[in-house]
Amino acid sequence: MNQDIILLGHGSGGKLSHQLLDEVILPHLSSTGAAGQNDAALLQIGGSKLAFSTDSYVVDPIFFPGGNIGDLAVNGTVNDLSMMGARPLFISVAFILEEGFSKKEFAEILASMRRAADAAGVSLVTGDTKVVPKGKADRIFINTSGIGVLEHGLQIDGGQGRVGDQILVSGTIGDHGIAVLCAREGLGMQTGVTTDSAPLNGLVQELLGLGDALHVLRDPTRGGVATTLKEIALQSEIAITLREEALPVNEGVTGVCSILGLDPLYVANEGKLLAFVAPDRAQEALKIMRAHPMGCDAAIIGEVTSSGGGRIQMETVVGGMRGVEMLSGEQLPRIC
Amino acid sequence: MNQDIILLGHGSGGKLSHQLLDEVILPHLSSTGAAGQNDAALLQIGGSKLAFSTDSYVVDPIFFPGGNIGDLAVNGTVNDLSMMGARPLFISVAFILEEGFSKKEFAEILASMRRAADAAGVSLVTGDTKVVPKGKADRIFINTSGIGVLEHGLQIDGGQGRVGDQILVSGTIGDHGIAVLCAREGLGMQTGVTTDSAPLNGLVQELLGLGDALHVLRDPTRGGVATTLKEIALQSEIAITLREEALPVNEGVTGVCSILGLDPLYVANEGKLLAFVAPDRAQEALKIMRAHPMGCDAAIIGEVTSSGGGRIQMETVVGGMRGVEMLSGEQLPRIC
Repeated sequence: MNQDIILLGHGSGGKLSHQLLDEVILPHLSSTGAAGQNDAALLQIGGSKLAFSTDSYVVDPIFFPGGNIGDLAVNGTVNDLSMMGARPLFISVAFILEEGFSKKEFAEILASMRRAADAAGVSLVTGDTKVVPKGKADRIFINTSGIGVLEHGLQIDGGQGRVGDQILVSGTIGDHGIAVLCAREGLGMQTGVTTDSAPLNGLVQELLGLGDALHVLRDPTRGGVATTLKEIALQSEIAITLREEALPVNEGVTGVCSILGLDPLYVANEGKLLAFVAPDRAQEALKIMRAHPMGCDAAIIGEVTSSGGGRIQMETVVGGMRGVEMLSGEQLPRIC
Repeated sequence: MNQDIILLGHGSGGKLSHQLLDEVILPHLSSTGAAGQNDAALLQIGGSKLAFSTDSYVVDPIFFPGGNIGDLAVNGTVNDLSMMGARPLFISVAFILEEGFSKKEFAEILASMRRAADAAGVSLVTGDTKVVPKGKADRIFINTSGIGVLEHGLQIDGGQGRVGDQILVSGTIGDHGIAVLCAREGLGMQTGVTTDSAPLNGLVQELLGLGDALHVLRDPTRGGVATTLKEIALQSEIAITLREEALPVNEGVTGVCSILGLDPLYVANEGKLLAFVAPDRAQEALKIMRAHPMGCDAAIIGEVTSSGGGRIQMETVVGGMRGVEMLSGEQLPRIC
């Protein structure tokens, strides 16, 4: 492997992404208040505590079952802000367009962004458009950055996981990644799998009612549930045990994964969250999730068993135990 | 011209960019608080008045005399916030990398971003990195978004130009565009022209001392001074007269422009600002600019002669008058 160049895997969200971040990016960019391993930075301005996040979207194809790059970009930034416990308010949008891109498709994408913003209750307030010659980009790339406000004194981030915490997922896993993969490979609608891309700010507002029993929120996007949990385990210095049989997976996703040899635990989600909740409030958290349209398939999938190490184990359906590591290499490039 | 597809000119910052914005983008995206024609949106959060802006950078080549895509991206967003009279505080950075891009060049760009942030006194607080397969992007694209705070009650934007206002430019025009063009065409260092990419927040803090005599601030980037003034003239509903002989232009820029048939008035700047100032404070404004390292070649280049119309005329060096329009088509693609 050439050590001197950028590889596709550096964009996977997995092990190589973390290496690039730790070895190349953070040494230059980290400064006071840096987001580090979290989905957004927390900022104090005047009397307000704000969250600030950014994400670029390069998904291929740009239209896929259940969504497109536009609503994905809005929901993604809404969710990054939400995972810090912030209420998302304002979103910026920046387009890089390839010369020759269809204005009609662009208008469709814009309309989806507007609908997604309205659904999440956020305003698209500022933007930018650049055009590059044909062959220098792939149709359309979108950056969304967002500002949210923290209206509580809770500290919710990837470093707050504690021994005994129950781990909840808000619904079925792997839907987004498999929907995009099927669209890309021409499997089309046959599998019936659609993206789960959706705004999670409403669900998070409900979960904030758990107060300081709510320790971690994170949306398992690139790298899937496995990679996200591994990040949290390392950040919180905890060990986690998952129960494979508790993982909610749609039938269509299970089918495609078994044919293609993919593990849904590593497949991207765009409308799901993981929550770490104190044990005595876990059933209440589950009830809150299941009562919300974004959490009807929620489940308790594991717990924090001890401190230290960042180790994740999974009790398999056949009764064994296996280690769970971060995504290594690139499973599905350009999934978001 | 095919009406259904995106053209290079849609990214020029000129007439086609405005058409795309007005006809395709704004009908979908505009909502309360939208930046519209300004460089940043103004937001009220808690007791704070904030400016929020976004810009993507796709400049080609990524290294050019005096700078690279990294410092350009930091300075650009610092300046967009400054032009609203805000003090820039926090910047997000998002990278789209092409598979195979050099890690060494990436590290160089990151180091430049850090130096630019330190020079401007802003923090790079959150980021994102995506990688696309070889041939699907051009080495590196960077988005920077920024948050600034308004610490005064002045209204400074493109709609505040008034009859009698004197128009100042903070220094020589066209340097950035010509530096990039020379690098691209292999004219290299022969012309001695370097980018003017620089943070303008320090200069703006000084100019804010003019209080409500300061009406408009705008940095003439894509489309140059001509296009930016035309935007202001339309937004403020005013007519402007420029004096060609007053325009500060470096010798090297004049030389390259005359050889290639370019007009420096349409060439991009990345470290200059235009200011509209009440006539009785214009000399004071000029003095403030010239006393600042970012404004030593400042000049009064024209004035607002009447209300209505959005018309711009220029008294030429030979004593005639010519109309000045917005950049039409694309003079220099991928200049920022």
